[in-house]
Amino acid sequence: MSPEKRTELRRIPDRGSHDWETINQILDAGFLASVGFCVDGQPFVIPTLYGRDGEKLYLHGSAASRMLRELETGIAACVTVALVDGLVLSRSAFDHSMNYRSVVAFGNARKVVDQELKIKSLRIISEHLIAGRWADVRGPSDQELKATTVLEFSIEEASAKVRRGPPLDDENDYGLPVWAGVLPLGIKSGPPIPDDKLMEGVVLPEYVRRYDTRLNRHGNT
Amino acid sequence: MSPEKRTELRRIPDRGSHDWETINQILDAGFLASVGFCVDGQPFVIPTLYGRDGEKLYLHGSAASRMLRELETGIAACVTVALVDGLVLSRSAFDHSMNYRSVVAFGNARKVVDQELKIKSLRIISEHLIAGRWADVRGPSDQELKATTVLEFSIEEASAKVRRGPPLDDENDYGLPVWAGVLPLGIKSGPPIPDDKLMEGVVLPEYVRRYDTRLNRHGNT
Repeated sequence: MSPEKRTELRRIPDRGSHDWETINQILDAGFLASVGFCVDGQPFVIPTLYGRDGEKLYLHGSAASRMLRELETGIAACVTVALVDGLVLSRSAFDHSMNYRSVVAFGNARKVVDQELKIKSLRIISEHLIAGRWADVRGPSDQELKATTVLEFSIEEASAKVRRGPPLDDENDYGLPVWAGVLPLGIKSGPPIPDDKLMEGVVLPEYVRRYDTRLNRHGNT
Repeated sequence: MSPEKRTELRRIPDRGSHDWETINQILDAGFLASVGFCVDGQPFVIPTLYGRDGEKLYLHGSAASRMLRELETGIAACVTVALVDGLVLSRSAFDHSMNYRSVVAFGNARKVVDQELKIKSLRIISEHLIAGRWADVRGPSDQELKATTVLEFSIEEASAKVRRGPPLDDENDYGLPVWAGVLPLGIKSGPPIPDDKLMEGVVLPEYVRRYDTRLNRHGNT
């Protein structure tokens, strides 16, 4: 299949974009990816955290992870990030929709071997998930690094899809006495739950207390 | 690849389950799936809504959707649902984790052709997303049904993975003056935004106002 075929935006081109700024904003607003790969024609889709540095995504996990062991061979992979922004409730069943932002990225991964680069990549993932945390915690030991695989996924090609705004009904349906509008949805954080074994006197860090601002970055709500 | 190989829980078996009750609870708590399939060894992962009826999942979309056209041929597919429940902040970078519930389901899909079954399947998807809505809106016309493809995905095999609870640190790390605990995360709804063209006198339905109870069903927060 030609690369262009993979991300060709066929159906609703006005919802689609190959613009890097849009793609990066979505990748930076999300933190959970669905990573797809094929083994003997069998697709696997595995949820995993990620970090971004330019056009590279970093994935990590146990050195024993089947997904990472497959991906590190360099096979074709697909990394998809989808953010749900709201239910779009129209007057007809047919015109119901979803407000969302999504990225589908194609490429392949290679193992990060260099120790310094490996630590840097882990920091990128950690800071992507919760900025400020890395400097606060004990860094990885040699043994822990050995038990961890880090992959660098190079995005060869990607497309973004975004739907925003109100429902769009058939002209004939606007006269129906049906509630219509958008129900905004989004990931929010709740009150932090301190560990039972927390050392006395340790205060809640600002980056945990204000995590919701991270969740809303580049969001449309 | 033998079916068992696909969902064999290798790494952390205590987090994994083949129990149908757990699997169904997770599928019912989520509404967005990542659907994977392979074309000439190239994986595609596409986010899509779904509904569940027993061991069948229903997917729908435009009859022109590339994903649905590939899947309706009956090729091997993977449907993954992942729910994020919290960030697990430990005292070391290495022991950081995520509280989550996920299902990876393997199987294949076939097109729902029978008109009555098609409408029933669409209702299942709609009610899964927002129970109570279907009865309120104009049902699909023949033309709209023709423009819609509905697939029935039969789950042949599935596994669930769940992580809950506090961070687990190395014994040596509990003495570090680092804040540790869980930051709960979850999808929440915001205040509904009525459509500008809403008919006068139409009130906000109860099932929209109380949508958060749906988001929390079977959740652990």
